[in-house]
Formats: sequence, structure tokens, C-alpha cells
Amino acid sequence: MGIKIIGSGSYIPSAVEKNEKFSDHEFFDSDGNQFSHGNEVIIEKFKAITGILERRYADPKLNSSDLGYLAARKAIDDAGVDPETIDYIIAAHNFGDVKHNTIQSDVLPCLAARIKHLLGINNPNCVAYDILFGCPGWVQGMIQAKAFIDAGIAKRCLVIGSETLSRVVDKHDRDSMIFSDGAGATIIEKIDGDSGILSHENASYTTEEAYYLYFGNSNKKELCRDTRYIKMDGRKIYEFALKYVPQAMKSCLDKSGKSIKDLKKIFLHQANEKMDEAILKRFYRLYRTEVPEHVMPMSIHELGNSSVATVPTLYDMVAKNTMENHRLEKGDVIMFASVGAGMHINAMVYEC
Amino acid sequence: MGIKIIGSGSYIPSAVEKNEKFSDHEFFDSDGNQFSHGNEVIIEKFKAITGILERRYADPKLNSSDLGYLAARKAIDDAGVDPETIDYIIAAHNFGDVKHNTIQSDVLPCLAARIKHLLGINNPNCVAYDILFGCPGWVQGMIQAKAFIDAGIAKRCLVIGSETLSRVVDKHDRDSMIFSDGAGATIIEKIDGDSGILSHENASYTTEEAYYLYFGNSNKKELCRDTRYIKMDGRKIYEFALKYVPQAMKSCLDKSGKSIKDLKKIFLHQANEKMDEAILKRFYRLYRTEVPEHVMPMSIHELGNSSVATVPTLYDMVAKNTMENHRLEKGDVIMFASVGAGMHINAMVYEC
Repeated sequence: MGIKIIGSGSYIPSAVEKNEKFSDHEFFDSDGNQFSHGNEVIIEKFKAITGILERRYADPKLNSSDLGYLAARKAIDDAGVDPETIDYIIAAHNFGDVKHNTIQSDVLPCLAARIKHLLGINNPNCVAYDILFGCPGWVQGMIQAKAFIDAGIAKRCLVIGSETLSRVVDKHDRDSMIFSDGAGATIIEKIDGDSGILSHENASYTTEEAYYLYFGNSNKKELCRDTRYIKMDGRKIYEFALKYVPQAMKSCLDKSGKSIKDLKKIFLHQANEKMDEAILKRFYRLYRTEVPEHVMPMSIHELGNSSVATVPTLYDMVAKNTMENHRLEKGDVIMFASVGAGMHINAMVYEC
Repeated sequence: MGIKIIGSGSYIPSAVEKNEKFSDHEFFDSDGNQFSHGNEVIIEKFKAITGILERRYADPKLNSSDLGYLAARKAIDDAGVDPETIDYIIAAHNFGDVKHNTIQSDVLPCLAARIKHLLGINNPNCVAYDILFGCPGWVQGMIQAKAFIDAGIAKRCLVIGSETLSRVVDKHDRDSMIFSDGAGATIIEKIDGDSGILSHENASYTTEEAYYLYFGNSNKKELCRDTRYIKMDGRKIYEFALKYVPQAMKSCLDKSGKSIKDLKKIFLHQANEKMDEAILKRFYRLYRTEVPEHVMPMSIHELGNSSVATVPTLYDMVAKNTMENHRLEKGDVIMFASVGAGMHINAMVYEC
């Protein structure tokens, strides 16, 4: 028995927010001090580290569940399956539906139930739940869907990652420039044969790492202390990711029985270009191998970091042949890998 | 192979909020009209329907993850296991950590990561994630833990339900009297033999039912339109539950291979006494059987509806022999069942 992706879809919001949009923002450091250099320098440095030139923000009328629905709809069409035959809908996110210009997360009902409602699926045996697992939520949803299929309680699952980080950023924090909105989805199902998902790896580091990403106050200290935003300790996350992610990827690949030479593509969470490149380098160094060309598709330059949405969106873009130098062929061995708030790490090796 | 509960724990906040506390509340109906009768009548009617005399509110210094931690700590002590040997921590909730007197949900990092942090578990292979599935979240977490064990990716799991509904109620809505705070937890593991979890059932009704429980504005119409609270259409939920829950319970029992006569206890989500009694009656009617005495322990009178926490808390109270007329013996067949926002329904048959 194998478990294969039979369809994918993504929703990329149409509103482009270029770096220049931040040039008149009033930025402060985490101590509330203004920077000695101007925003042009801040934005230039930001671009050099993260690789981000622009990002996407959802239409004010759409919420995270709407984005998730739009991606799911495409995945269902791509798979060509009757949505009533889906056994599980797993929605990964971090902040639920945050209406434009409000500060509350709405997860009642859970986003998977909203998405199922929007898809018009009536079958009550299609169980819809949400998973919170930081940015690696979509990969973790895939791991859970696989477990349900292996356990014999599901045959076909829809796994969605959807997020509107633009609604929870502190505009007085430079890190706000990283975050964006989007959604990606896949449908997986049980098939005959051995290909498909070959292995997975997952871990939660919650000792000193638990609050590297957290919900905190604005860097502009006079703003309301009761309003909180997505906050991160970028330096610590960078060091953490370099220390643990390459090893988790290696462990996952080794478990799959495939060799480093077999690996055609790595779909890594789009958090920060420099970090992703450093992770990749260390991963290949564990095999005493050079990083091959075109092994890691990157969408961060134009799409920013949309959390749970980056990996399925990137996969969908490559699967649909919309990225130069990136194609998937039957039999290709690929890897999904992610890291984020928790701190959680995961990886999955997949044979197309 | 079987899967057994090897320990349980619960945390019941010490602050008792009696019905009389609501006597000076300014209640409005959902259209914003004041009631023609006084609060004494409202409270009397409320008590007659729900059975609730008092409820518990968490200490202002504690959040949902703290309650979950306190319940988990007891479950670990009860099981007598090394917490470092736990493979999964699954935390079910609906609103995350809502600090006292604030309106934002904080789920960054997810509550399971916070609880793991508080438990001081260092093992990164202990994977900590949250599930959102309305009030049936804890039962669903048990179903997922079982799937992970069946799939061979876990041996021992900690499943927690924790909620602070007192932080998301609209004090101008009579339904605010229903909701309370609390946490319950269990540890399950793979054992030799056939007892333990025998069967489960789950369903998501998301057509017209999706928004029977929702996040909405205050009944006091002049209050801020951007602040939302837990809201419900009690009448529709009641009708929905009576229509679908008894059938789901029957389907679960029939799958287990046990007969209605074998069933010693039913741990039903504590939503509303009249509703729970009506569900029970209909369930037994499906077997053309009278409801036996002392089959359904009830905690709602003193503890109210603490969402995901009611079922594991009730189980813990009975397992620890703290409820009159309710004891569990080895070999007893019991059922967990729940219904809530989504609308989701689930059930599980378990042999002690």
C-alpha cells in the first residue's frame, strides 16, 4: 500500500505589497528605541537577509478560511474527485480567522468546518478538524492524514494550510515585513504500490525554545498593552533551525531508504532565504555532498512567509509547472520540511 | 493489541461562581431587547433546563494552558510514568490562552507546546500539537492518539482538554451562565490483550449546522462591534443533538461488539442536563430498553459546561471514586460521547 498526492491547489492573494510600502513605517527595536538609520537602510538589509522583495495580503473581505477554501477547491478539481468521498479535512493555521482591522481570532467553528461548509460537502463522515503546530502545521497535517490511512480509518484526506499573517503583524516591528497571506492544499489517498509517502520525521523543542515565536506587544511602547502581535526572536530561530533542521531532514531521508542522490527537490518552509540556504548547505554537508543546482524551489522573493501555506503552495506551483527550472516527473523523490513556532520541526520524503 | 487509559487527572478551579452572582447582570435577548421578567425568573428557568447551580472560573493569573498543565501533571502522576516517555501531547481547546480581562486568543506557541514546556519534558520526539474540534475535542484527541498507536508511530500519548470559557462569554447573554473553566487529561498506551478502546465514531455536520455555535457580538447592542464572544443557538443545538447523537452512540456501541446490557457508564459531554437526559433516553430507546439507574454520572450541577474539559474531568472523578453511586471496575464497558461547535459529534467505547 502507498499513499499518494492526487491533487493540489493554492490560493495566492492578488494584492502585492512591495518593500517600498514599508518606507514610511515608524519602526522601533524591541526595547522601543528608534533606529539610527533610515527605513531605506532597514529595508535594504531586510531584503539582503530574507530575500523578500514583495509579499501578498488577502483581500479585506476574505478571511483565512476563505483562502483555505479557495485552495481546497482547486485541489479537489485537480484531483478530479467527488468531494463527498473525502474522509478527513485537516486545516492547519495559527491564528484562525482574523477579520481585517480587528484583533480577535475567530475559530468557532474551527476553520476545517468552515471550509467544509464552503465546499458544500454534506457527508457527515467527512471529519473536519484544525491542527495548530506553528508553520510546520501543513506537513504535520500530512503526517496525521497518513496515520489515519495507515490505521485504516481513512482512505482520502484533504490537508490545507491557510494563514493571514498580515492581520497579526506589528507595523512598528521590522519583522512585520516577513509575513504574508496565502493558502495551499493537497488531497492524498491510499493507492496500490509502494510509492508516495515513504517516511516522516517530527519533533517539538519546547524547553528554552518554546517562546522563540510568541504573541507580544508592539515595539511602539505607548500602544495598548492588551493588544498583541506575532513576534519572533529571529537570531535564536536562525541558530535553532541550523542546529536541528538538517539533522531531522537527514533522519527522514535515511528512514525512507533513498539516497541523497535520489533527492530531486526539497520543498522547505519559506521563512528566510539566507536561513533556507544555510539549512540546505548543512543538510548536504551531512552527506559530504555539494548542493545540486535547482534542488530547492524558492517562492519567498515574491510571496514572503505565509506560514503553513508556504510548503503546499510551493509544491503546487512546481507540480503545475509554473516555476522555471522546476519540474516533477513520476518516480521523483522529493522532501517537504518545515520549522516554526513551538518550536516544531518536521519532514516528509515522498516519491512522485 | 489493546489501547488503555493508564492514568487520568483533572483540574477544577477553586473559585465557585453561584447562579446568584448573575442576579445583577443586565441581560438582553439576541435582538437587544431587555426581558419582561426579572433576573430571578431568568436564573430559575436556566437552572431548571441546564441543571447548573454553580460553575468554576479560573484564577485570573492562570490561563487555559496552565489548567491543562495542572491536569496533565496529575494524569502523569496517576499513571506513574516517566513523562519523557510520552510520544504525543494532544491539547484540545477552542480559544487558546485568553488572559483575564483581555479579548485576544494567544495560541503562539500552541497550548500543547506550552504544556510540554511547563511539564519540563525535554525529549524532542514528544510531539506536541493542538486540535480544534469544538467541545468534542478531547474525545477526538483520544481517537487521533489511538490512530497514531494503531499506525505504529506512537506507544504512549497524553490527551488533554482545557478551556477558560469564562473569558469569552458575553455577560449580557443569558447563555453566559452555562460556561465554565476546567481541564482534564488522560494517558493512553498500547498494551497486550484486547481490552481498552474498542471502537469510535465521529462526524462533522457543517451544512446549516456550521454556525449553531459561533463567535458573535454582545446582546447589548451599543457595545463595540469588533469584540466578539461565544454565542449559540441553543434551540437548534438541542434539536440537532437529539437527532444525531443517540444514533452515533448506537453506531459506536454496535461496532464495539458489546451489547447495551454490557454498558456500565456513559460519560456524556456536560452541556445541559435536560439535553443529556433526553439524549440518554433516546439512545436506550434505540435498543427498546429502559435507561438503567446510575449509568450517566453528571457534574454539570456544580461544574457547568467547560467544553473539552467535561468528559475527561468526569471520567477522572469517577475513576478516582469521588462520585457517589459511580465506580469503575476492571472489565466494565463504558462510553465517552460528545457534541459541539462544528457541529461535531463523536463517541468511543472503552473496556476498563
